Amino acid sequence: MSSTPRTPETTGPDATGATGPFGKVRLTPLTAADPIPGGFPTVGVIGGGQLARMMQPPAVEMGVRLRVLAESEAASAALAIHEAPVGDHRDISVVSAFASGVDVITFEHEHVPGAILEKLVADGVPVRPGPAALGFAQDKIAMRRKLTDLGLPCPRWAQVRTWDELAAFAASLDGGVVLKTPRGGYDGKGVLLFDELAGEKADTARQWLAAAGPDGLLAEEKVAFTRELAALIARSPSGQAAAWPVVESTQKDGICHEVIAPAPGLTEDQAAQATSVGLRIAGELGVVGVLAVEMFQTADGRILVNELAMRPHNSGHWTIDGAVTSQFEQHLRAVLDLPLGDVKARSPWTVMVNVLGGEYEDLYRSYLHVMARDPGVKVHMYAKEVRLGRKVGHVTVCGDDLDDCLDRARHAAAFIRGDIDE
Amino acid sequence: MSSTPRTPETTGPDATGATGPFGKVRLTPLTAADPIPGGFPTVGVIGGGQLARMMQPPAVEMGVRLRVLAESEAASAALAIHEAPVGDHRDISVVSAFASGVDVITFEHEHVPGAILEKLVADGVPVRPGPAALGFAQDKIAMRRKLTDLGLPCPRWAQVRTWDELAAFAASLDGGVVLKTPRGGYDGKGVLLFDELAGEKADTARQWLAAAGPDGLLAEEKVAFTRELAALIARSPSGQAAAWPVVESTQKDGICHEVIAPAPGLTEDQAAQATSVGLRIAGELGVVGVLAVEMFQTADGRILVNELAMRPHNSGHWTIDGAVTSQFEQHLRAVLDLPLGDVKARSPWTVMVNVLGGEYEDLYRSYLHVMARDPGVKVHMYAKEVRLGRKVGHVTVCGDDLDDCLDRARHAAAFIRGDIDE
Repeated sequence: MSSTPRTPETTGPDATGATGPFGKVRLTPLTAADPIPGGFPTVGVIGGGQLARMMQPPAVEMGVRLRVLAESEAASAALAIHEAPVGDHRDISVVSAFASGVDVITFEHEHVPGAILEKLVADGVPVRPGPAALGFAQDKIAMRRKLTDLGLPCPRWAQVRTWDELAAFAASLDGGVVLKTPRGGYDGKGVLLFDELAGEKADTARQWLAAAGPDGLLAEEKVAFTRELAALIARSPSGQAAAWPVVESTQKDGICHEVIAPAPGLTEDQAAQATSVGLRIAGELGVVGVLAVEMFQTADGRILVNELAMRPHNSGHWTIDGAVTSQFEQHLRAVLDLPLGDVKARSPWTVMVNVLGGEYEDLYRSYLHVMARDPGVKVHMYAKEVRLGRKVGHVTVCGDDLDDCLDRARHAAAFIRGDIDE
Repeated sequence: MSSTPRTPETTGPDATGATGPFGKVRLTPLTAADPIPGGFPTVGVIGGGQLARMMQPPAVEMGVRLRVLAESEAASAALAIHEAPVGDHRDISVVSAFASGVDVITFEHEHVPGAILEKLVADGVPVRPGPAALGFAQDKIAMRRKLTDLGLPCPRWAQVRTWDELAAFAASLDGGVVLKTPRGGYDGKGVLLFDELAGEKADTARQWLAAAGPDGLLAEEKVAFTRELAALIARSPSGQAAAWPVVESTQKDGICHEVIAPAPGLTEDQAAQATSVGLRIAGELGVVGVLAVEMFQTADGRILVNELAMRPHNSGHWTIDGAVTSQFEQHLRAVLDLPLGDVKARSPWTVMVNVLGGEYEDLYRSYLHVMARDPGVKVHMYAKEVRLGRKVGHVTVCGDDLDDCLDRARHAAAFIRGDIDE
């Protein structure tokens, strides 16, 4: 029973103090979980962003308890979840203490160091997804090597440690190069695109190469894609898997902007191919929980794997309102090894549009106007401070007419952001 | 921002101590709400049962913060909501302290004394629904008088203070009598049915009359109904109102057991009549928030008002999975004076069946089996200890085929309860 007040004592190690991203660490000492009536478990989520926050509604509905290891007291999930101790996920003592009070550990990001994950497993903590699977989400070079070994369709790629290696790879391509740091990138960060190895970008590439670790960088062909797709899969430890309809996603400045479910005009064969690639990756990599596979579709109809995320993903937010089982409920079911839920869409079309921080700080006021204009739009807000370009919420519209859904969802998101005022 | 740890100091008045239903009162002193980024408000809910708990998922999605004044640290809502100070809703100092930390006060039950509500209003606290409206939900005689004055269809009724008044009322009827305590009854408690004024029940009626306050008791004709209906309405302070489809509800031992949305075979005229009665009551009584109007349908097609509840209600749980806007989201929108959401059903049929405490204490295990058998059933658990006949959860099935929905929902509920084991 989790109503014991959080103790404000500082037990976090000093080393993670004032200079780190966590500010002053205030770790609540967690004891073993007090029992919830009926034998229901406690899930520990590492990371306190909006992805953890969005696990709370299904957890409450299911009768499951969440605890979150948050980056700060003002983290999006910490404002919505009962127990949200603040602590550094890179500190083994912090993560171990957190793990001791929960029945299973899962994640809303892939940034927990592998050594910490291995230690938890050695201590008998159920870690889902496990370190082996997570390794492929943490290291893009390992991911490319594994997918290539499995014969799964990828852009052409090379591991490059020197300028010569990069230049040789670039020379082997018809088009441009995408250079990626193998670890730590997200939402377009750690990605450098260039069409020729010259000028400012070449200088940046040289700097990246110089700063890279022993594994170097990942270089990939710049795929001339016609659109991006995403396959969303859930897999349980017992191997049960489920695949939601394949969606089309649109990025803006490297950040997911808009998702249409299902992907318009995708043939049955293409949908089956994308789904089967997703299911194969989930199974071969031993993923537990939700797996998002971002893909490129090319003009000649090929589907190539772009990125993997082993957690609920922005491309799956549509499932909250649009599917019988949302990705957040399914993630909890999967990491608890509960049977997976029905992934059917509840409407012919669902459109999700992200709300990024823009002109308005007073989101509540614009949100009110959106509700008044369109009683059918579902507005999701993350209780985050507005910063330019930061994901602060999303809107969803379900319906029978795709154009209508698109118009309404785009209008609502643009209005809340402050791009339009009528 | 609500992440300040709850202070474990005891500031509740001693008078509400060990002997009351609240056990040892530990009231967290609440300061004015820390701001949530974006200007989002905090809603204070009085009562920590499952109805408050079920407000948390939409609150998290909307970016709104809930605080709950709970009966105990183990209350259903206290296990799911960030800030849930324990305190007695019958104590003015407790309720005032709670109200000082929120932007609006609402309720998950009707048991806060009128004098406390009036005091809050006098202190400038937005109380929604307000004391005038709540008075009609708290006092069944006042409700009958008001509805009769409005010309709304009710069973025949009388206010009875003496045996002679009761006998005279009974003699005026063709059938039996329902005797009700005007205040405090729920789920069949405070209700006495008898077909003739003799025997044990007559003795009980005499005792009730002797124990009644100056207002006496409410006597009503026992309506020979063919089924029960419920109209679910939401109304905002600015007068906007919305009505979900009228449902059929089945009671077992005075407790809501099963709800079918929409009510099968209801003619358009009957649905319009039931909806219009609900909307009229909401408007005339000045209800803010969700109003449930339980009704009898008679063999000759008449619709009579049975009971009112001014809060989310068991007959509306189907809306969580079955409607674009759930009664819990709508209640929050209404009490915040946000525009109301679309009340359309998302499927042709939705069936909700309550899970009452039964044979099994280990609900998690039976729940797992239900999920395995039927990936499409939505199981909602309230984190309450199992006691015989206590509401511990509900299940919902949405679909195109009513019989299929009924079979699946009934099976799931019976299995979790432990009535069947395959």
